Amino acid sequence: MSKRREIIIVSNRGPVTFQRGPEQAREAKRGGGGLVTALGSLALHHDVTWIASAMSDVDREIAEESGGRAVEDRLENGADYRLRLLAHERSAYDKYYNVVANPTLWFAQHSLWDLIREPDYERSKLLEAWRDGYAPINAAFAEAAIEELSRRPEAIVFFNDYHLYLAPRMVRAQAPEAALLHFVHIPWPPLSCWHVLPGEISAAIHDGLLANDVIGFHTTRWRGNFIHSAESIANAERVPGKIALSYAGATTCLSARAISIDPRELEKLAEDPRVQEHERHIVETRPEFLVVRVDRTDPSKNIVRGFRAYELFLERHHDFHKRVSMLSCLDPSRLDIPEYEDYLEAIQLEALRINERFQQPGWIPIDLQIEDDVYQSIAAYKQYDALFVNAVSDGLNLVAKEAPLANERDGVLILSENTGAHEELGTFSLTIDPFDIGSQADAIYEALTLPAGVRQHWIEGIRAWVREHDLPWWIDGLLHDLGGCLASRARLGDTATKPEDGV
Amino acid sequence: MSKRREIIIVSNRGPVTFQRGPEQAREAKRGGGGLVTALGSLALHHDVTWIASAMSDVDREIAEESGGRAVEDRLENGADYRLRLLAHERSAYDKYYNVVANPTLWFAQHSLWDLIREPDYERSKLLEAWRDGYAPINAAFAEAAIEELSRRPEAIVFFNDYHLYLAPRMVRAQAPEAALLHFVHIPWPPLSCWHVLPGEISAAIHDGLLANDVIGFHTTRWRGNFIHSAESIANAERVPGKIALSYAGATTCLSARAISIDPRELEKLAEDPRVQEHERHIVETRPEFLVVRVDRTDPSKNIVRGFRAYELFLERHHDFHKRVSMLSCLDPSRLDIPEYEDYLEAIQLEALRINERFQQPGWIPIDLQIEDDVYQSIAAYKQYDALFVNAVSDGLNLVAKEAPLANERDGVLILSENTGAHEELGTFSLTIDPFDIGSQADAIYEALTLPAGVRQHWIEGIRAWVREHDLPWWIDGLLHDLGGCLASRARLGDTATKPEDGV
Repeated sequence: MSKRREIIIVSNRGPVTFQRGPEQAREAKRGGGGLVTALGSLALHHDVTWIASAMSDVDREIAEESGGRAVEDRLENGADYRLRLLAHERSAYDKYYNVVANPTLWFAQHSLWDLIREPDYERSKLLEAWRDGYAPINAAFAEAAIEELSRRPEAIVFFNDYHLYLAPRMVRAQAPEAALLHFVHIPWPPLSCWHVLPGEISAAIHDGLLANDVIGFHTTRWRGNFIHSAESIANAERVPGKIALSYAGATTCLSARAISIDPRELEKLAEDPRVQEHERHIVETRPEFLVVRVDRTDPSKNIVRGFRAYELFLERHHDFHKRVSMLSCLDPSRLDIPEYEDYLEAIQLEALRINERFQQPGWIPIDLQIEDDVYQSIAAYKQYDALFVNAVSDGLNLVAKEAPLANERDGVLILSENTGAHEELGTFSLTIDPFDIGSQADAIYEALTLPAGVRQHWIEGIRAWVREHDLPWWIDGLLHDLGGCLASRARLGDTATKPEDGV
Repeated sequence: MSKRREIIIVSNRGPVTFQRGPEQAREAKRGGGGLVTALGSLALHHDVTWIASAMSDVDREIAEESGGRAVEDRLENGADYRLRLLAHERSAYDKYYNVVANPTLWFAQHSLWDLIREPDYERSKLLEAWRDGYAPINAAFAEAAIEELSRRPEAIVFFNDYHLYLAPRMVRAQAPEAALLHFVHIPWPPLSCWHVLPGEISAAIHDGLLANDVIGFHTTRWRGNFIHSAESIANAERVPGKIALSYAGATTCLSARAISIDPRELEKLAEDPRVQEHERHIVETRPEFLVVRVDRTDPSKNIVRGFRAYELFLERHHDFHKRVSMLSCLDPSRLDIPEYEDYLEAIQLEALRINERFQQPGWIPIDLQIEDDVYQSIAAYKQYDALFVNAVSDGLNLVAKEAPLANERDGVLILSENTGAHEELGTFSLTIDPFDIGSQADAIYEALTLPAGVRQHWIEGIRAWVREHDLPWWIDGLLHDLGGCLASRARLGDTATKPEDGV
């Protein structure tokens, strides 16, 4: 385990948001979610200050009362830390979040655009939102980070995700010696996806990220795409003999480390009475075989094509009729974005169509559960015979890591080759091409007919991998990579001061 | 000009197709089209045998009567050549053309898929069409080429386009010393587009193409994408100091030469009475400004977004109402493919919507002409003030080269940066981002308000470029590149025989 460090986490969403409860008392609502769990575990062993956006009105009150200082708080995992909430200007935040981050960067990085029709906005409106929303919100984060750094000059600043691509450069300008780390939690797409964005934006994203000492990605694939785009868009150069880029006189090391989960937290959750109640219901009503998918209703998750693959499986294997159900626990997501609203409707129509085609008295082929219910999802984890993950593109996919730990039936993981998790778990799963419903249908059949020995071997392989590559492995690894990069920066710094050393 | 050579042209569609005319007489229907004009000009200076698919029933009769030998024919440009028609097995041809070539390779190479929803077929059906359609039709072309080569062993075999990726390897297997040239007339997309196809197909395409001595592309951009995908998919290696790849013990040189047009043919056509009749009609009915687009109704042409850009221009510039029209000469294309049928409908709805929004007595903002009428298109060429080319992706775009030669109003070319022609004509045109309707709207305004001096300078720049880089430049250049590559193959062959020369 790495030694105790001061760490300033910077992420758009923090680990807690405050609401007014009964009698106007403030109540903390602690979010689950993979990112918060992962980052929160940092506070178990390090001195953490967390900078995040104020989400609720109460959050904003707290931000104002604290006069720009961090307040003491305790995480769900019991660790103490300091929370600094930023009350952003609302219209700037709206542009940052609802124009740039989600409908643009998320779409671009997941290759979600149908380029014949999308993006269909005016580029100038995106650029305006970039300049008047994304840039000033990043500046607010950077300003807060610099203030915290002034109190703790030895602290590491740890930026997270696609909301904060500009902040590192802004911090670097004020704090040239600071240790800056950035983790990109979503895919880094091929170069061509960056060319769909205005050149000004693609260039600024690469320039901002390359202000970090270390940039972390889940997989070597996303990292390789970053190297390629940074070379082409930012004219960064590879550093011989290292996985690092040289840019603007500095070196950025590139780390490929997949995030993970907290197995104990999952085990605890699996015993929650609410999970057990859902599980009882599933056990009472389930047919012989259960195919489970657990996803947000995001187009990148490829839910409609997954249903079509399941339909093809039913078409080909009449002997499975009445013996199988696809339990789909779908968390409705970002419904204020029209593409997401359309996609949810497409999901519902497709499930309806397939159910109408095949259903018989006492048998519904697709059990569609559209709600945000983590307890139901964990119950489904325990009961699956096949876990179906067919994302078109996914930075990692934590479901593929969580569900096998909870599963009690030696269920088989069916895993898209375009998920980050596939780089780790591909050897213990049935690999599918997310564009090919034929291979997905075949994989469902294969999963449900795989010999028990193979199933057991695979699920144990996944569990062993996940337990070994857990959250401390991820965090300690990143801090180790950062340490190595800073040590070599120090060495380079010595030589760089000699004016006779030209570059 | 290069010396007279024997050339065997291989292309799916030939320069002529035969029909039954009055009293059952055979009538030749000579296709125009950029590719046929370009390849046909080869016959003016070289000894040409042309192998193409029999398209009509009469073509098939001729193929059978001639017993697999080429028949004498004369091209529209007056040149004599030999035509060898191949009567393919119908169901194999259907798979080759209507499953693989157009809905798959064309879509993949133009990045036309909305990956959340498409491709939505079973991969196994594509693979079946590949094995039972694309491969045997390529084998039939290869067999015919080998037979012709046996009669003319010194001949160059000149393959064309995405229909014939497998044939070169098949010919190479039988004729190791043959001179093989392939020109890819459509974009070569980024590597990620190849990954959407089954690995078996992407690998076979690269393997087939790399059997050629020279592969030609329109632009350095498509060529660069090919180098990248061939390295990644086929493990081809760059040859130091040359623009060539080493693969399977042989070298393939990569040429970037944009195809061109025959300026005299265009000038002759511009004086055709049918063109003049259309022109009179345009002159009589046109408003002050005419924006013209001439395209097939192909989703890659970005027609719907172009209308939305024009709408935005009208929204912003009320002073242009009643003074401008967008004359859209659209050739209905591939309507047996559902995506094309849908796209044509979307075009019509969008034009209707915009016309209903802005029209006034005596003024229709969009003049939608959906028909295959080359004379009308040439008349529009003569009359445009702005020529609008906003393709999402286009191998070259010949309209951008043709229309300025015919234009009589110093019209301005508005050109998508994703067309091959942009690499040549970008300096003499208004560059647009095909995904940004805002910049396209601005470009329309700028084109219609550009000073006369600039307009004249630009159109003269385009004309001078096209006249200098005409069809003989393209053909002689390709033959020159082939000669260079063969000469270095001969030298390499000498050294390769020395067993002590390791690679």
